[in-house]
Amino acid sequence: MKRKIRMGMVGGGPGAFIGGVHRAAARLDGLIDVVCGAFSQDPAKSKAMAGELFLPESRCYGSYSEMFEQERKRPADERMDFVAITTPNVSHFKIAMAALDSGFHVLCDKPMTLSLAEAKKLRDQVSETGLLFCLMHNYSAYPMVRQARLMCRAGKLGAIRKVVVQYDLGWLAAPNAGKQALWRCDPRYSGICACIGDIGTHAEHLAEFITGLKITQVCADLATFVEGRQLDDDGTVLLRFDSGAHGVIEACEVASGEENQFKIRIYGTTGSLEWSQMEPENLIWRANDQAMRVYRRSWAEMDPSLAVWCRLPAGHPEGFIEGFANIYTDFARAIDARLAGTDYQPSYPTVEDGVRGMAFIETVFKSHQSDRKWTPMEPC
Amino acid sequence: MKRKIRMGMVGGGPGAFIGGVHRAAARLDGLIDVVCGAFSQDPAKSKAMAGELFLPESRCYGSYSEMFEQERKRPADERMDFVAITTPNVSHFKIAMAALDSGFHVLCDKPMTLSLAEAKKLRDQVSETGLLFCLMHNYSAYPMVRQARLMCRAGKLGAIRKVVVQYDLGWLAAPNAGKQALWRCDPRYSGICACIGDIGTHAEHLAEFITGLKITQVCADLATFVEGRQLDDDGTVLLRFDSGAHGVIEACEVASGEENQFKIRIYGTTGSLEWSQMEPENLIWRANDQAMRVYRRSWAEMDPSLAVWCRLPAGHPEGFIEGFANIYTDFARAIDARLAGTDYQPSYPTVEDGVRGMAFIETVFKSHQSDRKWTPMEPC
Amino acid sequence: MKRKIRMGMVGGGPGAFIGGVHRAAARLDGLIDVVCGAFSQDPAKSKAMAGELFLPESRCYGSYSEMFEQERKRPADERMDFVAITTPNVSHFKIAMAALDSGFHVLCDKPMTLSLAEAKKLRDQVSETGLLFCLMHNYSAYPMVRQARLMCRAGKLGAIRKVVVQYDLGWLAAPNAGKQALWRCDPRYSGICACIGDIGTHAEHLAEFITGLKITQVCADLATFVEGRQLDDDGTVLLRFDSGAHGVIEACEVASGEENQFKIRIYGTTGSLEWSQMEPENLIWRANDQAMRVYRRSWAEMDPSLAVWCRLPAGHPEGFIEGFANIYTDFARAIDARLAGTDYQPSYPTVEDGVRGMAFIETVFKSHQSDRKWTPMEPC
Amino acid sequence: MKRKIRMGMVGGGPGAFIGGVHRAAARLDGLIDVVCGAFSQDPAKSKAMAGELFLPESRCYGSYSEMFEQERKRPADERMDFVAITTPNVSHFKIAMAALDSGFHVLCDKPMTLSLAEAKKLRDQVSETGLLFCLMHNYSAYPMVRQARLMCRAGKLGAIRKVVVQYDLGWLAAPNAGKQALWRCDPRYSGICACIGDIGTHAEHLAEFITGLKITQVCADLATFVEGRQLDDDGTVLLRFDSGAHGVIEACEVASGEENQFKIRIYGTTGSLEWSQMEPENLIWRANDQAMRVYRRSWAEMDPSLAVWCRLPAGHPEGFIEGFANIYTDFARAIDARLAGTDYQPSYPTVEDGVRGMAFIETVFKSHQSDRKWTPMEPC
Repeated sequence: MKRKIRMGMVGGGPGAFIGGVHRAAARLDGLIDVVCGAFSQDPAKSKAMAGELFLPESRCYGSYSEMFEQERKRPADERMDFVAITTPNVSHFKIAMAALDSGFHVLCDKPMTLSLAEAKKLRDQVSETGLLFCLMHNYSAYPMVRQARLMCRAGKLGAIRKVVVQYDLGWLAAPNAGKQALWRCDPRYSGICACIGDIGTHAEHLAEFITGLKITQVCADLATFVEGRQLDDDGTVLLRFDSGAHGVIEACEVASGEENQFKIRIYGTTGSLEWSQMEPENLIWRANDQAMRVYRRSWAEMDPSLAVWCRLPAGHPEGFIEGFANIYTDFARAIDARLAGTDYQPSYPTVEDGVRGMAFIETVFKSHQSDRKWTPMEPC
Repeated sequence: MKRKIRMGMVGGGPGAFIGGVHRAAARLDGLIDVVCGAFSQDPAKSKAMAGELFLPESRCYGSYSEMFEQERKRPADERMDFVAITTPNVSHFKIAMAALDSGFHVLCDKPMTLSLAEAKKLRDQVSETGLLFCLMHNYSAYPMVRQARLMCRAGKLGAIRKVVVQYDLGWLAAPNAGKQALWRCDPRYSGICACIGDIGTHAEHLAEFITGLKITQVCADLATFVEGRQLDDDGTVLLRFDSGAHGVIEACEVASGEENQFKIRIYGTTGSLEWSQMEPENLIWRANDQAMRVYRRSWAEMDPSLAVWCRLPAGHPEGFIEGFANIYTDFARAIDARLAGTDYQPSYPTVEDGVRGMAFIETVFKSHQSDRKWTPMEPC
Repeated sequence: MKRKIRMGMVGGGPGAFIGGVHRAAARLDGLIDVVCGAFSQDPAKSKAMAGELFLPESRCYGSYSEMFEQERKRPADERMDFVAITTPNVSHFKIAMAALDSGFHVLCDKPMTLSLAEAKKLRDQVSETGLLFCLMHNYSAYPMVRQARLMCRAGKLGAIRKVVVQYDLGWLAAPNAGKQALWRCDPRYSGICACIGDIGTHAEHLAEFITGLKITQVCADLATFVEGRQLDDDGTVLLRFDSGAHGVIEACEVASGEENQFKIRIYGTTGSLEWSQMEPENLIWRANDQAMRVYRRSWAEMDPSLAVWCRLPAGHPEGFIEGFANIYTDFARAIDARLAGTDYQPSYPTVEDGVRGMAFIETVFKSHQSDRKWTPMEPC
Repeated sequence: MKRKIRMGMVGGGPGAFIGGVHRAAARLDGLIDVVCGAFSQDPAKSKAMAGELFLPESRCYGSYSEMFEQERKRPADERMDFVAITTPNVSHFKIAMAALDSGFHVLCDKPMTLSLAEAKKLRDQVSETGLLFCLMHNYSAYPMVRQARLMCRAGKLGAIRKVVVQYDLGWLAAPNAGKQALWRCDPRYSGICACIGDIGTHAEHLAEFITGLKITQVCADLATFVEGRQLDDDGTVLLRFDSGAHGVIEACEVASGEENQFKIRIYGTTGSLEWSQMEPENLIWRANDQAMRVYRRSWAEMDPSLAVWCRLPAGHPEGFIEGFANIYTDFARAIDARLAGTDYQPSYPTVEDGVRGMAFIETVFKSHQSDRKWTPMEPC
């Protein structure tokens, strides 16, 4: 790379959890500079954040539309290259559309939009503009998740029979769970599902990402346990996959005491894999005729192609920010290749993953409302 | 106790896994003597087992009916007190009925019968004879399961919102899984369900035993992954409880590489519990406002009433046989109290648990065949 | 076997922890009957225990000498075959000597005697009488310890470089730790070392048992942390082995909150092993060029010769009593073979292990008193 | 802060493991810019690294002395503020002395110097110049290590009796362990100890840092297991502390299969703590009268003062780079306060920790060569 890639940011004002993660991740490998932002709808907060980031006032904008307009006018050697969208779900679509309209590549938080219809329109826009679009499905970027994917794809597990995903958090157990909780449980900001949108889509994405299978039918049982809450705070979803495999996603945001308990188990005819987000450097292999094995990041028997997804030798823990950073770095390299006219095969999640996630949310919601056992998840 | 309780045995011939466990458990606390048996339908095998047990030939019977008839005639000071039934499911009912007819108390393996109808008849017979009937739901006898039950019943978790049970085994992953597998997958010996009957009932029982809640509706997705197999070798079942709690049982016997992975998690408004059969001495407590706690068998903060369910100080592992032995010892004490005319409140699972287990199997099977999402589990 | 082996017991009165373990272990496999005992020096307590065991009064003796004398006179078909000695250390020697004098085989708790001199005399006596002598080093009988031993002996680890043993308990952390603690910290009952005698000898035995190496030099730092205590309640001992390997035993009985934390790690040129008593069914293999492996009891890749040391399939936890029972069963089979004049190669620890343990205690104590770094552990 | 703090770097050329960690850590929180460097003694390599960092050629220097000279001449608004020294041990002293001479603050890798004499001279120089000096003892910056320190200092453990540190790596198990291994085992670059200097000093630092106790005597047993190696690749060291506590450090770099197994256990009269670098977000509390507790980073019951040492909510793993970054951020804030003339109490390790580390290495080496059991570690 000849220069750092320049990033603008929408959202991520003071106190936003995920905005800070995006910035730390963007910084980690030294390939990206945050050069501008519209960090908050409140100008004072936006300026405060710009100050924390040592940005000049001129690069702190009052709105995303102002940012796109002004940045477009800047000379090529200082103009931002892409925008990172870290706002609540409700505004992802319009911001992303505007960015693409203005010629900027886009990195967007998930779930991608508020509805499947929006998601499809966004996909069309990405296709028409030819710009790069990256969806922040960060869990897909842990090296041992990639290792699991490689093993599944290589047939090490034989035919996959069952996929079990657990995702439990306690953060919404009490009625008052803070500001973050408010918008996530408000359909105006979050869409038709909260728990399924927030963590169910992570589960769905990881299941398909690792196995390469596609969900074809769901049977959902959602719940809203906290009184007065408008959206689901719990959900369990039976799954059928295109290969005939069965599965289940158990997701809960009122699981008192759980931190971020996201686990996946994949059972095949010849062996099985287990990965857990809270111990992300282990990938457990079990088979009927072998001692249990624990594959480790950066250790012998990790696939050599994954070295670029690691920074440290085994035993020196990498974690959540590194996973995020892997997506950012892959995206930065893709932008650089685009700038340089060279070839690069990125593997970050794309607008297609976002369409699929929105289809999952809508299918689950439909199933929840239905008395029929199975609701098909249509290809889209 | 004035003397040891005398046990006869039906089943448990050479090579039977569970028969040996029953005997070791019966012996462990020194309160029970195996005095006779009809160990196999093959007289040579039955005699071989009697020899291994140093029993006189006169106490090795050709059939259970002969055993009940002959033992009834023996003098009170040598006659067996109860029979332990460890045969395949198909014969539980007739053997138990005959034993009760002959005036013997009964300890029976689970699932209790081949059908719910049989289960109800057996319940009537127990009621009419007034004899003692113990169902071997061994997992309910682990001390930390009892601790979980006490904590749930005492309201430590607040209102229970969600119950998640995992039960995974790899033993049926391959088509040829040995002699044990043959009868378990044969409807003539096993009934309408294999996986759900074998391990699903353990999951159902533990969920209700610990929480005190009752399942009212199920939504089942069963599978038969190994070609040619006549019964389910996998099943996932959504649950609704009488309190409004939700739940799921994920059970699989083709889970390659899993040994006996039986876990339960219970989420309440104020905290949650996790117990795992493969690490049975730990009970994990999580709550949103506290450090995670690991309660340990025989350690401080275990309920003092559970001391009788333990033999060793903490840190000296007790396991599977001790769990079984807890049931046997509780049953022996109940028989002793009956003999002595004294008062004793046993807590082993009874014929009611067996009726409930059979209702669960039949309801799950009905749900599996239905296109409707929910199938009610009728009280019975 | 034609009949059960008959066991008499010295010690193990009401409230004795280890006496109950001995009995449960002796019962577990159904090869041994406890037929008599001198359970306590207090006749009332001794009778109470005999009652609990349903023994006739005539087999409850006032002293071990009376027991040996009376049992010797009984007809061969009811006389006890061996005595299990579970008293405090101080009396092991005289009871064992008397038992051998009377022609009884002996199973004895560790440490074997009060001094090395006694140990050597006992060894001579065993040798002269030709009777069987078994030392209860129970940890050596866990299947995964045996697996570790086989792997070490087969050279799987290459040359062993370092052996690290941890043994931490909290039970003596407070000044008043109960009746058990009293005699263990009293030199009249326990000998010159408490912590080193009680748990240090387990560490020493396991290190040598698994690796096949012999300790040749020690450097000891003992401590007595609780004021007024007469013996060590903590000790760390540097080790040198005959092969040139280095090692360390870290033992502590005032380790607040620890239950029975006994672990061993063995590092060789080509790989290493780790075993932990509190998770005894795992044996962890690590090597620089491989994923970590967890060998499991009764699972694939356990050495088939170890099947006789297991009762249950993998995933059904066996524990502390099963380890003890393995020693008892091995000893019972050896006695049976002696009775039958057949051939049997037992592998229980013997009087030689006891001599070595006493040499270790005395060498450590000598080192503790010395200003020199190294104190040789003489062969004996 | 008004602006980012500007860092220069000596060492950390292409392929250097720890140099990359320093840079990622410096970047993570967005408070520091790497503005210049003398990354390698090979100018081509140095330039290559500068290119990777998008530095202008003018800020890539041929030597550290050139860098200090040139940077000193730069205007205040672009001149580097501090230098990070990440070279082999041999050159730490001269580079640090030169930096201080030139008026730059210093952040230096450990062990601080090649000898205790050098360390003392460096301490004098720091004192005379009044400049800031930070020693990179990164493990002291994990939040749960800080939590342990707070709990020890607050007396939660009562009087500390025993401290046990384990540090095992397999990376030097084979004779050819790569370029990094070469200098570390060469006394010209590494000093008198390899294993003790490299990882033993981490163990020593953490033991004193957490407990607040000071080591007063050591008894060391070092080994060189790989033939031809000039320095120790293994060492076990008995410890005595100023309070009367005992301890042991078990360190090994030929521990086949171990990654970075660094653990510490601290036993007090009322409770104990365990922390493990490979699971750095857990701090385990054990006490004789309580269920085991696992304190977690950013979770309830973590001391609120530690929030500034964390970036993410509990359950979102932070790791090794975040630990490093905590030191960098603390140092950057200290420099900023110095620039602004404001008050800030940093808590990064200082030149005093470095002096102590060198004293430890020299005392251990002296003990290793001695036949006496104890060698005093003199205050210095």
